[in-house]
Amino acid sequence: KGSPVQKSSGSRDVNPDLEAERQTASFSVESLTAILDGGADNTRTRRAVEAVIHSEPGFSRENQYFQSQNERYEAAVRRSVYLKEKMHQMGWTEDGPEIKYCYRTLGGDLAFNVHRVFKDSILALGTDEQIAKWIPLADKYHIIGTYAQTELGHGTFLRGLETTAIFDISTQEFTLNTPKISAMKWWPGDLGKSATHAVVFAQLYIKGKCYGLHAFILQIRSLRDHSPAPGVIVGDIGPKMNFEHIDNGYLMLQNINIPRENMLRRFSQVLPDGTYVKRGSDKINYLTMIVTRVHILWTEVIPMLLKACTIATRYSVVRRQSKLNPSDPEAKILDYQTQQQKLLPLLATAYAFHFMNAYVNEFYNKGYTEIKQENFDSLPELHALTAGIKAIITEYCTAGAEVCLRACGGHGYSALSGLPSLYTKLAASCTYEGENTVLFLQTARFLVKCLAAVHSGQPIPPSAAYLSSVDSGKCQARTKMDFLKPDIYAEAYRHRATRSVKSTTKLQALVQSGAEQHEAWNQCTVQLVQAAKAHCHYIVVKNFIDTVEKLRNEAEIQKIVKHLCDLFALHGIFSNTGDFLHAGYTSGDQMDMVTASYLDLLAVIRNDAVPLVDAFDFTDESLNSALGSYDGHVYQRLYEWAQKSPTNKQVSQAYARYLKPLFQSAVSKL
Amino acid sequence: KGSPVQKSSGSRDVNPDLEAERQTASFSVESLTAILDGGADNTRTRRAVEAVIHSEPGFSRENQYFQSQNERYEAAVRRSVYLKEKMHQMGWTEDGPEIKYCYRTLGGDLAFNVHRVFKDSILALGTDEQIAKWIPLADKYHIIGTYAQTELGHGTFLRGLETTAIFDISTQEFTLNTPKISAMKWWPGDLGKSATHAVVFAQLYIKGKCYGLHAFILQIRSLRDHSPAPGVIVGDIGPKMNFEHIDNGYLMLQNINIPRENMLRRFSQVLPDGTYVKRGSDKINYLTMIVTRVHILWTEVIPMLLKACTIATRYSVVRRQSKLNPSDPEAKILDYQTQQQKLLPLLATAYAFHFMNAYVNEFYNKGYTEIKQENFDSLPELHALTAGIKAIITEYCTAGAEVCLRACGGHGYSALSGLPSLYTKLAASCTYEGENTVLFLQTARFLVKCLAAVHSGQPIPPSAAYLSSVDSGKCQARTKMDFLKPDIYAEAYRHRATRSVKSTTKLQALVQSGAEQHEAWNQCTVQLVQAAKAHCHYIVVKNFIDTVEKLRNEAEIQKIVKHLCDLFALHGIFSNTGDFLHAGYTSGDQMDMVTASYLDLLAVIRNDAVPLVDAFDFTDESLNSALGSYDGHVYQRLYEWAQKSPTNKQVSQAYARYLKPLFQSAVSKL
Repeated sequence: KGSPVQKSSGSRDVNPDLEAERQTASFSVESLTAILDGGADNTRTRRAVEAVIHSEPGFSRENQYFQSQNERYEAAVRRSVYLKEKMHQMGWTEDGPEIKYCYRTLGGDLAFNVHRVFKDSILALGTDEQIAKWIPLADKYHIIGTYAQTELGHGTFLRGLETTAIFDISTQEFTLNTPKISAMKWWPGDLGKSATHAVVFAQLYIKGKCYGLHAFILQIRSLRDHSPAPGVIVGDIGPKMNFEHIDNGYLMLQNINIPRENMLRRFSQVLPDGTYVKRGSDKINYLTMIVTRVHILWTEVIPMLLKACTIATRYSVVRRQSKLNPSDPEAKILDYQTQQQKLLPLLATAYAFHFMNAYVNEFYNKGYTEIKQENFDSLPELHALTAGIKAIITEYCTAGAEVCLRACGGHGYSALSGLPSLYTKLAASCTYEGENTVLFLQTARFLVKCLAAVHSGQPIPPSAAYLSSVDSGKCQARTKMDFLKPDIYAEAYRHRATRSVKSTTKLQALVQSGAEQHEAWNQCTVQLVQAAKAHCHYIVVKNFIDTVEKLRNEAEIQKIVKHLCDLFALHGIFSNTGDFLHAGYTSGDQMDMVTASYLDLLAVIRNDAVPLVDAFDFTDESLNSALGSYDGHVYQRLYEWAQKSPTNKQVSQAYARYLKPLFQSAVSKL
Repeated sequence: KGSPVQKSSGSRDVNPDLEAERQTASFSVESLTAILDGGADNTRTRRAVEAVIHSEPGFSRENQYFQSQNERYEAAVRRSVYLKEKMHQMGWTEDGPEIKYCYRTLGGDLAFNVHRVFKDSILALGTDEQIAKWIPLADKYHIIGTYAQTELGHGTFLRGLETTAIFDISTQEFTLNTPKISAMKWWPGDLGKSATHAVVFAQLYIKGKCYGLHAFILQIRSLRDHSPAPGVIVGDIGPKMNFEHIDNGYLMLQNINIPRENMLRRFSQVLPDGTYVKRGSDKINYLTMIVTRVHILWTEVIPMLLKACTIATRYSVVRRQSKLNPSDPEAKILDYQTQQQKLLPLLATAYAFHFMNAYVNEFYNKGYTEIKQENFDSLPELHALTAGIKAIITEYCTAGAEVCLRACGGHGYSALSGLPSLYTKLAASCTYEGENTVLFLQTARFLVKCLAAVHSGQPIPPSAAYLSSVDSGKCQARTKMDFLKPDIYAEAYRHRATRSVKSTTKLQALVQSGAEQHEAWNQCTVQLVQAAKAHCHYIVVKNFIDTVEKLRNEAEIQKIVKHLCDLFALHGIFSNTGDFLHAGYTSGDQMDMVTASYLDLLAVIRNDAVPLVDAFDFTDESLNSALGSYDGHVYQRLYEWAQKSPTNKQVSQAYARYLKPLFQSAVSKL
């Protein structure tokens, strides 16, 4: 049955309230873990990586809740440099299976994430010669690069970027400038304190004519003493809600000259005489954006929800509060229906997204192969799907982590619970790599086109093919048990998505009645976002159902995962009843059946809640939570950790300066 | 027209994009400000207080986003001590009008909040003699007290507290003990580093018999050198999601002996021979809890949403991104319907809650007068109303601040925007002074009783009187314009609340079918919470409607406030369509009318959005936001503030230790 790292790392016995939950598991936790890992081999590899990482103090994240922004940054750099060495030492390669487990184990607390984007952009936009020059240096950290695209006044709308790169034929150089303050590069990670180089996006000008955005490589700090290059103003943007370990930075360029060969020129170049030459399609560049989006889902987003669920669920069987039955001791808070309603749908969501992630990767890999062969047919669908799925997953994970935090009462609010940092990290994911509202609207635009294709009889991409199927009119469920049938709820979600997408025909109506296209679009965006969400929600439900089916050889596990799938689907209906009631697809009576089935499921899944989070198999070190450890000794750990806080060690001037003189007056009176 | 402080404090000109918004206000901002303040006199007093506070550097909150937890604490103590001096100097009294403006101006960044609860508890539970001894010392800060109730393992369920106070007849002393780690006092503010004294709640034992919870005053630190008293283990609980300026602490007691007179004994005392005597009703003690709840709404909760709206709205007319019309410049992001949908309902909510606050205070003052006269009839209603209103307001304000933060894209995530600290402060309010789910269930319990009173023909408290009115069956609206009639939407909310409360008759059904009362209750709690929310939502809508009516002498202002009221009500329907569709009260077609009217209102209110937040009249110093200042120079300010960050001043070891050796290798190659 294996011996998970976290079990051996806790030398103390387990809190009996937590232990009791594990005795009654309806399935083998170890088997489910293997399924989640994609096979027992992967589980073994992962645990081997965890053992290596946890045995090396240089990787430790202990005490990180006490660290200042600068200390967090320094520790992240240390871990990243150590990791490079360790990988070399262990023979783990950049494209090997271990690296993703390293990220998972370290909870993403590493530096040089944008350095990777720097490399990816050179690989995508650079010539072979440029790749040969820069990538080996970057691979070895002999230079650290950043990707400087976003500006202080410009984010989503790339065409609006204001940094300029003017080509001078006489010197054969580009001169880069930040013409005004809103054009400063702002936010790039690894820029504030680390980077020596940057890929900078700027408007290319030749002989006074603008050729649009292009990417340029330039050195921004000395390799000898790390001082900013002449004409470069660079620094850290200061405190943020999280990501203290990342040196997000600003960059202002004042007449920086770089040689002609420093423009990334796989798809376009400037000849010595100033002639601008374009070659091939740079559509492949979209892949960089898409791959980053797919990448963050399994490194920075979904695991955070899994961790939050683990912490909150374990705490909820250790925490006892108030009495359910007056003659009993205080009850475990997970025995309260309201607590179940907070946490168990999230547990189901965590599973839904974990399985969705596998689906997205498969989808991406298929598209990637075609696109590499210059077949761009699947690009719009790949783009729309990853945009919408990124948005819905980050949205739900963020909201979910907040629920977990608040479900742990006051202790959830302590940084030592680990929950504040999970929530605040997730909150950023709703904005970075594509702001979610913008992304939902991109998915909606794709759906509007698919709907038009349905009407004109053209082929429809697979993920939206359901739009052409015949509407079933009314929900067929007659009892609350019927709502545990995947066909029934899948159909309900399909109906809702179809109706929601079709309601955007308001757009055409507005245009036909004389509104300008852009104005009509704007007036429909609230509903277009709703349509995109309904579409994505349906896809996630559908994929969960498919996943359950594939588990047919694992009866016990299939049963509990089916419960989770049912819960995810019914919770979604219960939380959005209006969408299903609106056109009469579901009746009020049927909705009461949904509620009844949903509430019944809470009680069923509650019994396996702890085994279900145990199956995620996070080590204590990786969770880094006083509330969530495998042994459940939450109060002891909170107290031990609190004593180590700098607030108890640093001397405060408050007493000597302000309070002592006041307290003196009471000495004689008490 | 007055000259608000913030206008004079900005010496630079105003960003033209922001200025333009002010030129087209449909109403007098100054008049609305006066209404919000409860009269122009109050506005004058408030601005006078602001001028005093802002002119004194000792109160400054500049640079606070850069401070460590200890620095924040020290600054809060400094401000509190200065404030005491300043109030004395200005002749402002503890019960004068100025003090609440001091809190508002300083954004609650003061110490000794729990010291006030310490005083309140002595005033409520102490004898005149005890009050005479302790209150003068506490008033002058010659002692600092804390209120030690919550324990590491015990929060909501007070009877479960484990700290013991054993009376010893031979010594005439109580011996206080923390019998185990879960019994440590945990979380009390002002305890971690400041307090010299504490009101400690403990189980009273006399001759082996437990008499339940009682309050005791004890000294926990020396008045001479501030060292912990013998047998006292005390410290700070460490980093939290916010409230760095408060020294939330832990307290462990080991055989602490205190004299018999240190038990707070207005309602019960222990005689020298160990006889326990109870006198009068301590029901009045509920008032302490209720007044604290009412107090935080206008000091720590509602103003935070007003600030978040101010910041996000101003930023949204300064930030330009993407094009609405391809031939225009980039559009102000507030011109996008999706941005309007995020911010404008929150603006309406901010007004709704501001007005609700006035209602709650009136309600409280009336109840307070009766209760002081030992008439406890209104206590259950007062308790239920303040519980539910506290829960709904903290819930909405927290969610609202998060929306504001995310609506400002990446810059909202910067601490310098001020939004992360508003959100994280609000997040705590959902838990402290009563966890919201628990509070909603208390309101629900009251509603269930009211419903029983309806059925048995007994009198019903005013706030729930609507439960006995006749159901109107179907919504009468025929056009989208009908949904702008307060009668129409008030009736819809009334119907929803009534139906939701009546659906809890499931509880009786379960009991009648043999379930035990406590088990039946637990199985209904998800729906009971829904009922409480629907009830509170209805009360807020109703009060908003009443407020609009009272503005009949101010036509322009009444018009815009009516729009806000409509928006608040319709947004609530739009966001909870299922509740209104379920029983067929509203049809799908009517719901489409709601959506249409709701979206129309967004465009109307958008034009007055900036004047509507200007009317809140926060000074720049109080907002403390790089994005939200009156002058709208957001990019300049972000850059100026970022340069001051410690991340740009402290020397990091990361370069010398980890990066320099690597970069050396590239020197020869580049």
